[in-house]
Amino acid sequence: MNIEAFFKITYGLYIVTSKNENLLNGHISNTVFQVTAEPPQFAVCSNKDNLTTDFIFQSGVFAVSIIEQDVDLQYIGHYGFKTGKDFNKFQNVNYKIGKTGAPIVLDKTTAYFECEVVQKFDVGSHIIFIGKVIDSEIIDESKIPLTYNHYRNVIKGVSPKNSPTYFDKLKLEKMKPAGKTGKLYKCNVCGYVYEPEVGDVEQHIKPGTAFEDLPDNWVCPVCGANKDMFEELA
Amino acid sequence: MNIEAFFKITYGLYIVTSKNENLLNGHISNTVFQVTAEPPQFAVCSNKDNLTTDFIFQSGVFAVSIIEQDVDLQYIGHYGFKTGKDFNKFQNVNYKIGKTGAPIVLDKTTAYFECEVVQKFDVGSHIIFIGKVIDSEIIDESKIPLTYNHYRNVIKGVSPKNSPTYFDKLKLEKMKPAGKTGKLYKCNVCGYVYEPEVGDVEQHIKPGTAFEDLPDNWVCPVCGANKDMFEELA
Repeated sequence: MNIEAFFKITYGLYIVTSKNENLLNGHISNTVFQVTAEPPQFAVCSNKDNLTTDFIFQSGVFAVSIIEQDVDLQYIGHYGFKTGKDFNKFQNVNYKIGKTGAPIVLDKTTAYFECEVVQKFDVGSHIIFIGKVIDSEIIDESKIPLTYNHYRNVIKGVSPKNSPTYFDKLKLEKMKPAGKTGKLYKCNVCGYVYEPEVGDVEQHIKPGTAFEDLPDNWVCPVCGANKDMFEELA
Repeated sequence: MNIEAFFKITYGLYIVTSKNENLLNGHISNTVFQVTAEPPQFAVCSNKDNLTTDFIFQSGVFAVSIIEQDVDLQYIGHYGFKTGKDFNKFQNVNYKIGKTGAPIVLDKTTAYFECEVVQKFDVGSHIIFIGKVIDSEIIDESKIPLTYNHYRNVIKGVSPKNSPTYFDKLKLEKMKPAGKTGKLYKCNVCGYVYEPEVGDVEQHIKPGTAFEDLPDNWVCPVCGANKDMFEELA
């Protein structure tokens, strides 16, 4: 078996949101797909440990905001690498409440739809929710939808631990030989891997900078963890 | 509700195959996605009327061949717009039999995986099969996976009638005003829509050619139907 084959599957990236009474939450997902045309029904696949999964169970509704291509790791990290158990992800975010009561993210999104859950399937670590579409709208027609391929290869993002495709990047990075600019370092908080050949354009770190040569105030570009939360990949 | 929002969902395009004793079959699918990482499990969503769906029920196995970007409408049409009830889709096709016994298409594909069905969910017109991955391999690392977006916008393909996303293009084309080069014509066999502004590069028809001006021996580029099987879109 060669798990590289799995990375040839094409996905988009979405913020799947829900509510629980007055609380709102959402997480990043790449597994959103239409399952029937008549009636229009979509499926989302969510980890049982995620707070949003719990909210979807409680409220029976979810919304999907379709992320546009022009985003950075911080944007994804806000929804994807932090848990809503610790803070309100919708504070200081431009959103609206949809017809179902679930929040719809309006920053850096191209379209959205909202669903009422009609079926739930247990597939092990994850639940597949089948939702009947209640409403759908374009937010900005000019924006290009972000693909998972673009996120991984251009933005250099990784899968959060609870994603169905989590094991990909980390396992692969471990198998890579160290380049001449030094070894790879992994963030123990979120799983982000610092690659010396890539650097970190957001924090003005040039490609070719070894991890040891990063400034002391450099932080994980995904979750904001300090340098000492990083571990060398063997 | 604006169904344009649905087209912002990103998919790839795949040939989902199975067997039934000595018979082989396969169809085009855009709904293939990983649902868990441990163990690696994938889901495929198939119309109940498709022969391949029947074969998956019978054999409990399926394979997914991941189509590369450099294909034409005839390639997709062979698997996507004709039924295996009438002919053997694997005659004159370069394929191999995988570990599960399902056929794997080797022409114009970049990778594949094979699954044993562990769960089946009825979602109305379609069935979601959950398969545990038995094997996966790269066929050609250099090939770019075809996306549904590329298929629709560059190759100018449409969804087959049994696809979860079928209703998209036809409904939209009907809503479009006729251009100055003439009206749109729909193939009554497969649903392909001839667009005068686009022409048909495969059959050397220049953009700007009205349907009425197509040569008598022109055929539907997807399913091969004659010109008289086309109907003007009102």
